[in-house]
Amino acid sequence: MRMYDLIKKKRDGEVLSEEEIRWFIEGYTDGRIPDYQAAAMCMAIYFRGMDNAEISALTLAVKDSGETLDFSEIEGIRVDKHSTGGVGDKTSLVIGPIAAACGVKVAKISGRGLGHTGGTVDKLESIKGLRTDLYKSEFIDQVNRIGLAIIGQSADIAPADKKLYALRDVTATVDSLPLITSSIMGKKLAAGDDCIVLDVKCGSGSFNKTVEDGERLAAVMVDIGKRAEKKMLAVLSDMDKPLGRAIGNSLEVIEAIETLKGGGPEDFRELCIDLAAYMIELAGKGDTEECRAMAREAISSGKALALLEDMVEAQGGDPRWIRHPSLFPKSLYSYEVPSPADGWIYRVDAEQYGMASLALGAGRNTKEESIDYTAGIVLAKKTGDRVAKGETLATLYTTEKQGNIGQAEKIFLTATDIRTEAPEEQPLIIKVIR
Amino acid sequence: MRMYDLIKKKRDGEVLSEEEIRWFIEGYTDGRIPDYQAAAMCMAIYFRGMDNAEISALTLAVKDSGETLDFSEIEGIRVDKHSTGGVGDKTSLVIGPIAAACGVKVAKISGRGLGHTGGTVDKLESIKGLRTDLYKSEFIDQVNRIGLAIIGQSADIAPADKKLYALRDVTATVDSLPLITSSIMGKKLAAGDDCIVLDVKCGSGSFNKTVEDGERLAAVMVDIGKRAEKKMLAVLSDMDKPLGRAIGNSLEVIEAIETLKGGGPEDFRELCIDLAAYMIELAGKGDTEECRAMAREAISSGKALALLEDMVEAQGGDPRWIRHPSLFPKSLYSYEVPSPADGWIYRVDAEQYGMASLALGAGRNTKEESIDYTAGIVLAKKTGDRVAKGETLATLYTTEKQGNIGQAEKIFLTATDIRTEAPEEQPLIIKVIR
Repeated sequence: MRMYDLIKKKRDGEVLSEEEIRWFIEGYTDGRIPDYQAAAMCMAIYFRGMDNAEISALTLAVKDSGETLDFSEIEGIRVDKHSTGGVGDKTSLVIGPIAAACGVKVAKISGRGLGHTGGTVDKLESIKGLRTDLYKSEFIDQVNRIGLAIIGQSADIAPADKKLYALRDVTATVDSLPLITSSIMGKKLAAGDDCIVLDVKCGSGSFNKTVEDGERLAAVMVDIGKRAEKKMLAVLSDMDKPLGRAIGNSLEVIEAIETLKGGGPEDFRELCIDLAAYMIELAGKGDTEECRAMAREAISSGKALALLEDMVEAQGGDPRWIRHPSLFPKSLYSYEVPSPADGWIYRVDAEQYGMASLALGAGRNTKEESIDYTAGIVLAKKTGDRVAKGETLATLYTTEKQGNIGQAEKIFLTATDIRTEAPEEQPLIIKVIR
Repeated sequence: MRMYDLIKKKRDGEVLSEEEIRWFIEGYTDGRIPDYQAAAMCMAIYFRGMDNAEISALTLAVKDSGETLDFSEIEGIRVDKHSTGGVGDKTSLVIGPIAAACGVKVAKISGRGLGHTGGTVDKLESIKGLRTDLYKSEFIDQVNRIGLAIIGQSADIAPADKKLYALRDVTATVDSLPLITSSIMGKKLAAGDDCIVLDVKCGSGSFNKTVEDGERLAAVMVDIGKRAEKKMLAVLSDMDKPLGRAIGNSLEVIEAIETLKGGGPEDFRELCIDLAAYMIELAGKGDTEECRAMAREAISSGKALALLEDMVEAQGGDPRWIRHPSLFPKSLYSYEVPSPADGWIYRVDAEQYGMASLALGAGRNTKEESIDYTAGIVLAKKTGDRVAKGETLATLYTTEKQGNIGQAEKIFLTATDIRTEAPEEQPLIIKVIR
């Protein structure tokens, strides 16, 4: 087999066989196939797409490129949640504790942030001392003991995806359904959970520009999961709004804590209750309504918050920070962005909000950069809110990038569409696909 | 500027500015832009194409990526010919001497072969001792003295193309009009000739599947040349037939010599007379018919053959080999391919004939491989010929790859379409574009 022939085949719109796809992924993982050929292949896939059999073969090849985790030592049903989106998405920090409080086992493997998207691992590490590099035995013990653990992705899980994603990220080939599917599901299948809830984002700021695009992506992923004998459920949710009000690492952890205390932005709290309910439902604990009630009870009883505390303590962090978020270090500098006009927040570009947050130091441009945990944005106004000229739209926070505040404000304002009319209201969850 | 943004822009079908294209080519040439980003860009260009302004900017950027030759010390009009095709194409070895014998200056810079295509430089080097790495002063002196010199491409001419072509060759992005145009014309404009005759191949075996495709490519190249104040002419010729009967290095030189002696395959001889006549015409020596007569006279008088002898001698080769081609080393092994059926040679796949020749050792799979100069194929039957079952279709020659004869025969037979009906006759030159 020659990589040249496979690239040409896909370029010409032909279907690759399972054997060819596996050969490509194995060869790329072990370095026999160079980056430039993989880049050409990704761009050909971008333009030509793949049929369901190809996507399935690609996903399984990614899964099999490394270690497949065996969590059979974990007692109970293991449920995971994955979101395709990302700006201000701290749902994992809320629904993990809720689901675990309801008796579901949450053994979560999360990523770090790159570019405008944040990563759950970075958010957690804003809690001083917290370790996300547990040994497998520690991880399993912790899940068995308290029901919840969140760790970073090890290089051994789906290494093909790690390499391929880094390449796609710099060659403008991220936005491709087959490549997104195989990346997400390849990792998820390798991680060995029993049930998976997918949160698929739709809207102008995401890969899925239309609900139909989102449905196709969700359906393909649900199908692949089911064929691998996983219990699957996907929700389509609105990407145009950042989730909650906080963007940035410790700012998001604090918002997650407030939400677990029964506060936080209402729309965000409701989304978390829904997503957690689906996780509990997939684990067989009841129907959707019963599970939703269980999720609410986990918050109101304080059980979910206690579980987050237990997790932070078990992973080496200071659990007092959870009870008293004022213990989180504050940023040295802050700046309130005034509204340039009267009107309604009609639409915002969540991705650009992520870019503004990146400029403030909350993310990394390259894998090697360090993160300013205190940096980020807290929105005072969200889509649909009325605003007066001069009123504060958001507060920008930074410790290390004071010089970038002006640039971040500019990005933020360009991404904020203020009009003289109010937008139509959109539900956060558009559709559920089972 | 970020390469990521340029790839995304082209991927999304937008037009790149002259500044962006120049930045890409400069950055790729000096190594700032890695191969994988250039590969993704080439594939995006493959799918999205480029408008004429982009193609022109790309061509000039390739030209300016290295040294632009100044041949003002050469007296007289300098004419070059370039072919887009390639299997069995030894026209340069025939028309260079003819044009030079008619008073045109031919200062030719040629390439080496890679994959299924041969290179004029490799063919010449099958003449023992012949040097294709002349110093610039030697090159100019020789052209002034005898009117003809053929050397290899120096790394200093259009280095962007050298790098980009090597990349395209392994990423299935060769077949792209903007990339073909900028590659050919970038080099040609850097080489500093006054007049350029282009031989653009059409047919199922070439990039230009239809005559319309070929016309578009020819028109774009002629336009770019004229804007750079070159005298331009392009012929569209039929790619489905290999040129002449010989494929392989010394086999082709021998066929070129026979043609200069007034022998050789008639269709090939006529094509050479036409192409040489266009070169002489562009140099202002007369109208097409007059120039055709001059070209015929150059053959019949023996002047053109004498010029090839002079060139070989000037470049260090043994000129007796030209008068006595029996002095060329013979292959150790030969094999006559019997026809599997009665009928007519209806169509052949010239590219696959090139692959069969490659399997016999006549070419290189990688730049580092050495060439068996004696290896190749001589066709006994060509498209349109009648053949009886068991009759010889071609003879395969090799010295170093005896073990590959069976494989080469298989490739050859698969590429030879024998039917019970005769094909329609096609002229070799389909159209002339000025």
